Amino acid sequence: MAAAAVAKKQENGVSASESDGISSVIPGWFSEISQMWPGEAHSLKVEKILFQGKSDYQNVMVFQSSTYGKVLVLDGVIQLTERDECAYQEMITHLPLCSIPNPKKVLVIGGGDGGVLREVARHSSVEKIDICEIDKMVVDVSKEFFPRVAIGFEDPRVTLHVGDGVAFLKAVPEGTYDAVIVDSSDPIGPAQELFEKPFFASVAKALRPGGVVCTQAESIWLHMKIIEDIVTNCRQVFKGSVNYAWTTVPTYPSGVIGFMLCSTEGPPVDFKHPVNPVEVNGIDTPNNSLKFYNSEIHSAAFCLPSFAKKIIDSKSN
Amino acid sequence: MAAAAVAKKQENGVSASESDGISSVIPGWFSEISQMWPGEAHSLKVEKILFQGKSDYQNVMVFQSSTYGKVLVLDGVIQLTERDECAYQEMITHLPLCSIPNPKKVLVIGGGDGGVLREVARHSSVEKIDICEIDKMVVDVSKEFFPRVAIGFEDPRVTLHVGDGVAFLKAVPEGTYDAVIVDSSDPIGPAQELFEKPFFASVAKALRPGGVVCTQAESIWLHMKIIEDIVTNCRQVFKGSVNYAWTTVPTYPSGVIGFMLCSTEGPPVDFKHPVNPVEVNGIDTPNNSLKFYNSEIHSAAFCLPSFAKKIIDSKSN
Repeated sequence: MAAAAVAKKQENGVSASESDGISSVIPGWFSEISQMWPGEAHSLKVEKILFQGKSDYQNVMVFQSSTYGKVLVLDGVIQLTERDECAYQEMITHLPLCSIPNPKKVLVIGGGDGGVLREVARHSSVEKIDICEIDKMVVDVSKEFFPRVAIGFEDPRVTLHVGDGVAFLKAVPEGTYDAVIVDSSDPIGPAQELFEKPFFASVAKALRPGGVVCTQAESIWLHMKIIEDIVTNCRQVFKGSVNYAWTTVPTYPSGVIGFMLCSTEGPPVDFKHPVNPVEVNGIDTPNNSLKFYNSEIHSAAFCLPSFAKKIIDSKSN
Repeated sequence: MAAAAVAKKQENGVSASESDGISSVIPGWFSEISQMWPGEAHSLKVEKILFQGKSDYQNVMVFQSSTYGKVLVLDGVIQLTERDECAYQEMITHLPLCSIPNPKKVLVIGGGDGGVLREVARHSSVEKIDICEIDKMVVDVSKEFFPRVAIGFEDPRVTLHVGDGVAFLKAVPEGTYDAVIVDSSDPIGPAQELFEKPFFASVAKALRPGGVVCTQAESIWLHMKIIEDIVTNCRQVFKGSVNYAWTTVPTYPSGVIGFMLCSTEGPPVDFKHPVNPVEVNGIDTPNNSLKFYNSEIHSAAFCLPSFAKKIIDSKSN
């Protein structure tokens, strides 16, 4: 997860310093406590706080952890660590882009750290990459502290729009993009709009026939009710395929994160069988190699545990 | 993970009460801190401590958590929670047993909570289930506090042997079992024996030709060096197939756990394509249903992220 297109407010009434998670909980450790995952917390040992700021939208913090490299935290929630960011960025990007032949125009909503851009840029067919991120501080902080992530901004095909993703999408001419990637924060609070029907309808309109969207869609272990609602909304809006995939990210709550993958009416898209292997058609060289994604793990990401499959299938059909 | 066949000693010189994790870290929370995953800790909120004891081998604790049900902890490390135990127990059991036709004789090493037995018992072809667990306190505590897990002991095909798994295996006549499941704790400390060549050689001897073993094999995010060594050892001992699989378990460090799946020389075993679907040939009724495992997720479990695949494949061939 990177910065939200719509900013998140404090959810549980704690002060700014407490919401940064550096608190009395474990002295010298950062603990991620939230109403989104009550009763549990993942903690990382802090070597040094490198940045603390308050943007117009959220608290932004960067710290050096002792075993996960540098860590980006927004409003007390871990967005990325250098050690495991590859899993999230590669999967949220290549699951949609490897499912269609020759993606040319791609829109990223959120994703202000630049990691999704870095991955989109591997696709040599891509001609234009728009990104709409609401919080410029996230972009600046990523460029300063996470150069290997923010490198995505250096690609000449990228245009950064700082602003609200919902408004940006409404102004997009119909059928503009081959793919939209929604790299958002959690759907409780103001980012909620990014998980509701009107937003999905804007995404569908902005996509060409047979175009694809991939949106961050929470954890099957923690948020099945939210996922049910997202699937129901997507099924109503997207007349092509509607699928749920997931992957491992150790520093996200419950250790997994999911994605909704949908296509608009038009040329059919079979997400489970990628047609555009980035290992073959894209940039995957020894100096710039994929760490996580491959075609096998792409297909495997759509296989769900029975408890989740039962619920998601019942909403999908 | 359930009780080790060989008990784990304190690894980092902390006192017994500290090793139980109820410490000053988060008041009222259990925090899992270990040299096996330095710099990070997962914490669960404690409603009530239900049991604390010291067996001949380890500290045993059970607590009621606020959101993960009851939790079993050995020497400060979470072994199971009621909320997510299904993933580990179903995968460590059905990955091996669904890969061979008609398993009849099964041995479980460790697994004193009974969860693996519960899953083995779903297979109607099975005639005999031996379990060798070193620590009787784990069995007794599970029967008292985790009846839905310990129910595995009630199956009439089960014989419990309380003792050392390494010695037990040495005494097993050659070619006795169709499958051996090693449900052990971590391979640093005394359980190390269960990950070394002489132990694997005993397992291979105890298996019939084309028999299978599945052993707990750590996290690709945390322990690639240990996994490399296990793969190397298994490749030398098992002359059939040698494969690595993994699954999600939110309350295990990094949120994932892996398994080594190997077969002895004899009828070939293709672990990636299960031949014995428990959903069809076993017991999977509405009152006693699988929560996690299905044939799709069986095959998907063998698909690895590129960073792990590269290392494991280089050791396997």
